[in-house]
Amino acid sequence: MVRHESTAPLLANEDPRDSFDEDERELLKQEERSQIRRDRRRMCLCLGLAAVLASAAAITTTYLITRGSPLAAGRSRNVIMMVSDGFGPASQTYGRSFWHFKTNDTEGVSLSSLDKILVGASRTRSSDSLVTDSAAGATAFSCAKKSYNAAIAVDPNGIPCGTVLEAAKQLNMLTGLVVTSRVTHATPAAFSAHVVHRDMEADIAVQQMGDYPLGRQVDLMLGGGRCFFLPNTTEGSCRPDGRDLIKESSDYEWKHVLDYPQYQELLKQNKQILPLPAMGLFHPSHMNFEIDRKKDKEPSLSEMTDVALRSLKARATDENQGFFLMIEGSRIDMGAHNNDPVAHVHEILEYHKTIQKVREFVADNPDTVMISTSDHETGGFTLGLQPDPNTYPDYLWRPEVIDRATTSTEILTADLITYHAQNRGLSATQKFVRKEILGQGLGISDATEEEISFLSNPDAIANDILRFLGHAISRRANLGWTTMGHTGVDVNLYAETAKEVDRSVLDGLRGNHENTEIGEFISWYLGLDLESITSRLSKSSTEWFKSKNAFSALDHTHSLHEETGH
Amino acid sequence: MVRHESTAPLLANEDPRDSFDEDERELLKQEERSQIRRDRRRMCLCLGLAAVLASAAAITTTYLITRGSPLAAGRSRNVIMMVSDGFGPASQTYGRSFWHFKTNDTEGVSLSSLDKILVGASRTRSSDSLVTDSAAGATAFSCAKKSYNAAIAVDPNGIPCGTVLEAAKQLNMLTGLVVTSRVTHATPAAFSAHVVHRDMEADIAVQQMGDYPLGRQVDLMLGGGRCFFLPNTTEGSCRPDGRDLIKESSDYEWKHVLDYPQYQELLKQNKQILPLPAMGLFHPSHMNFEIDRKKDKEPSLSEMTDVALRSLKARATDENQGFFLMIEGSRIDMGAHNNDPVAHVHEILEYHKTIQKVREFVADNPDTVMISTSDHETGGFTLGLQPDPNTYPDYLWRPEVIDRATTSTEILTADLITYHAQNRGLSATQKFVRKEILGQGLGISDATEEEISFLSNPDAIANDILRFLGHAISRRANLGWTTMGHTGVDVNLYAETAKEVDRSVLDGLRGNHENTEIGEFISWYLGLDLESITSRLSKSSTEWFKSKNAFSALDHTHSLHEETGH
Repeated sequence: MVRHESTAPLLANEDPRDSFDEDERELLKQEERSQIRRDRRRMCLCLGLAAVLASAAAITTTYLITRGSPLAAGRSRNVIMMVSDGFGPASQTYGRSFWHFKTNDTEGVSLSSLDKILVGASRTRSSDSLVTDSAAGATAFSCAKKSYNAAIAVDPNGIPCGTVLEAAKQLNMLTGLVVTSRVTHATPAAFSAHVVHRDMEADIAVQQMGDYPLGRQVDLMLGGGRCFFLPNTTEGSCRPDGRDLIKESSDYEWKHVLDYPQYQELLKQNKQILPLPAMGLFHPSHMNFEIDRKKDKEPSLSEMTDVALRSLKARATDENQGFFLMIEGSRIDMGAHNNDPVAHVHEILEYHKTIQKVREFVADNPDTVMISTSDHETGGFTLGLQPDPNTYPDYLWRPEVIDRATTSTEILTADLITYHAQNRGLSATQKFVRKEILGQGLGISDATEEEISFLSNPDAIANDILRFLGHAISRRANLGWTTMGHTGVDVNLYAETAKEVDRSVLDGLRGNHENTEIGEFISWYLGLDLESITSRLSKSSTEWFKSKNAFSALDHTHSLHEETGH
Repeated sequence: MVRHESTAPLLANEDPRDSFDEDERELLKQEERSQIRRDRRRMCLCLGLAAVLASAAAITTTYLITRGSPLAAGRSRNVIMMVSDGFGPASQTYGRSFWHFKTNDTEGVSLSSLDKILVGASRTRSSDSLVTDSAAGATAFSCAKKSYNAAIAVDPNGIPCGTVLEAAKQLNMLTGLVVTSRVTHATPAAFSAHVVHRDMEADIAVQQMGDYPLGRQVDLMLGGGRCFFLPNTTEGSCRPDGRDLIKESSDYEWKHVLDYPQYQELLKQNKQILPLPAMGLFHPSHMNFEIDRKKDKEPSLSEMTDVALRSLKARATDENQGFFLMIEGSRIDMGAHNNDPVAHVHEILEYHKTIQKVREFVADNPDTVMISTSDHETGGFTLGLQPDPNTYPDYLWRPEVIDRATTSTEILTADLITYHAQNRGLSATQKFVRKEILGQGLGISDATEEEISFLSNPDAIANDILRFLGHAISRRANLGWTTMGHTGVDVNLYAETAKEVDRSVLDGLRGNHENTEIGEFISWYLGLDLESITSRLSKSSTEWFKSKNAFSALDHTHSLHEETGH
């Protein structure tokens, strides 16, 4: 096994979250990392960790003792864990009502694929805050443990905890990750890697490939994030080192495709069933928003899901080999981070479509449970706005405003910044802003002089433009946002089994649950032993999960990097 | 029966929502109506009414045919319908997490009385908007029909529809309403009266007393709203006419108590069981917020609920006489309208306490179903805020900030306006603002000069002060609001039966439902015939529900009236 050169152990009493300093970041030299942000305050609050740890362990034990394991000997089971990142209750209502508008369902009779399978809600707080991030949120699902914000499958003390994916692999099951973010991003990472901070994406990629104490655990990985698999000697890399993971991955038997044509060719050669292990990395960073996606350049989430389900089922070596597959609508969250109701809703509709496909699979495969939930809400998104504090607010919001837009604010912001860089002069810029950005892009025909003026200013910075555009259309649609970060509201919990199956199998998910109980449920349903994985992970003499290597804090919430294109 | 003098019929083709104009409002002469607001835009959108009507009828029929009625002959059943007005998903998380803080539950282990009985969610749109008001919301529960915003138990065409309360009375059941708003306010009104606009509270009071085609339907009515029962010749009346409903109510056998001492005396005289019919009106307008309530002046929601449950059970004339009781945490909504996180959370905690009492009753009474849901969300309330758009937001919110406050912003606003009226001079006012309003009232010790300056301005108007105070504390707690009105998010749905009962009785409530399906469920569970009530209501030759009488549009969302005191 090729060991990561710079995984030097830390002193035992060192706080793992303090293991990166500004000097180390100096290693990050490459031009394309200009967008690096240091939002490390996520790691700040760390209260009562030992108590939380003890409590989480107690809850797990109680759950398992009470329920026992349902796994009959020799039976295969599948779990499909669906994560709608950053998707709170308001976003579900929003997606459904927008769909009613799109389909001219004025009475709102049709339901989304999720509505039919609502079973409860999930509480999202992390071990160190009432408002979680995606890393702690995903760790709750994967390890069935609360941890601190930024933790990737490590406990509140920064010690690796076994995940449901790893425990499934230990039972000889097939495993997969299908996402639209970088595959190294928090949610997929927390199922397939262990690091003390989510920004260690270069280390996460190494572990996902198989270079860590357990060896390769993932059989199928589809999404974005190519840049963390390329050596820093290559254009488009965002690694801080020279490791070529694409090349190294052959040592772990991976077939890899780095763009959509390669992927289609691989599928064609294999009767539309992927050979495993397979990794498809369709974008240097996050894949494009569904509304911006070019159909000949990137697959959609539902397309990838189709292939993943077919492949995992077909590649089982015998009928008793089940699978664990995590599918994430990753960029629902990013649309909300951008306060962009347009990108957000199209991600939601694609997620609904994906859920529908998964439900069809579940219907045909009785030994399968699908769970769908969110790690947290993003944006403080609400379906009502009072634009003028002096006027009593209208009781309405306007889907037709959203339906007129054609492009995400992320792309429009990049386009506008590119335009500004061309120095075409004020008059031409104003015309461009009015016609292309606001008119064609957002469907806004009543732009004010103030709006044109703000956006025509060549000094405006990307994040301000992004927020300005999002709020320009949100205000017209009477939609509200209170933050470009996360909020603490409970999120909806959905689950499905085949109709012929005893529905009581889902009883453990009905009602209001701690997010860790979702991990406990998966563990129970598949008969997993998370503790034994935790124990195996602790056997290494090095503290490989605390790499002193510099890490590349790419923006978590959008793809505004020149190198990533769109 | 005493007929209301001014209930002249309208022309048949007149839109009932246009039946009040500015001239008619001139009838409202009394000083204490200075706060009248004309937020009639709620009534504006009216799309596809006939289609919605037809659809709602179809849904009802399907539901009943599919399920049949479970009512065995001679068996009594009870339904307790709990309405948490203006209580969205974020408010439930908020109340629970605040409780964790209050009780030093740092791990967040304890659950609220609602969490344990979450069964699904309710879609809240009305027939004319994606964002409902409380009138249309309550009509969905009471008539199992979608209607327009402002409709009180009338269909989209303004025609009275039979309610579950009236249909229960037709089966000789006992009926009750327990609220903390005026009893004439939208939610209780929509179960016990029929008018084309919610602001017709003087007419609503007349009907609740029993003066309408069905006669007295309500057996127990506890809450605020005394002013609509007093003649306009009396101080503290808000009727536009001289009817003395307290006096008239004797014709309908009502026992009435008009304050807390009278109520306690009545209870004492009757072994803590109210004689029925009984009405207790504890405040001229809405009762005080729980955080402001003086325990010797007004009962709490949970106290009233205790008495109501005991009385309805004890006053059954035989063991087969069940009851329908609607209990509303009315002012959860008003705290949110005021964007006041302090009043809001204490209303929520009192609602949780009330739910706990009802659950204890349900546990002891197997033929009882309790349902708890909201009509809509209010405030666009979120558990996260980005105070500075140029700084990446913290992932947290701060319950400790809320815990330091002692008084609602409604009372503080009234206090400040009273102080301003005394013309004490700038320096004294600034001191009062800093020490009494912000310091003692909201627990704010770091007030800025800008804050002191704004609040010390004697020209500041009540609504601006109200919002300013709410936002001052919300910002410090990292809590967000997007409106002082309502939003369209789905709301949580909770239900409970006794443990010994087949839990499948609740299956009709599990998952995501249209709000009308809650009315359908009640109708099914109790074996009600809503259509026959609708038919009886249509037999009157006058259009009594369209009174041309002027109506008194008291503020829906707070009690900032001099005459109401606190």
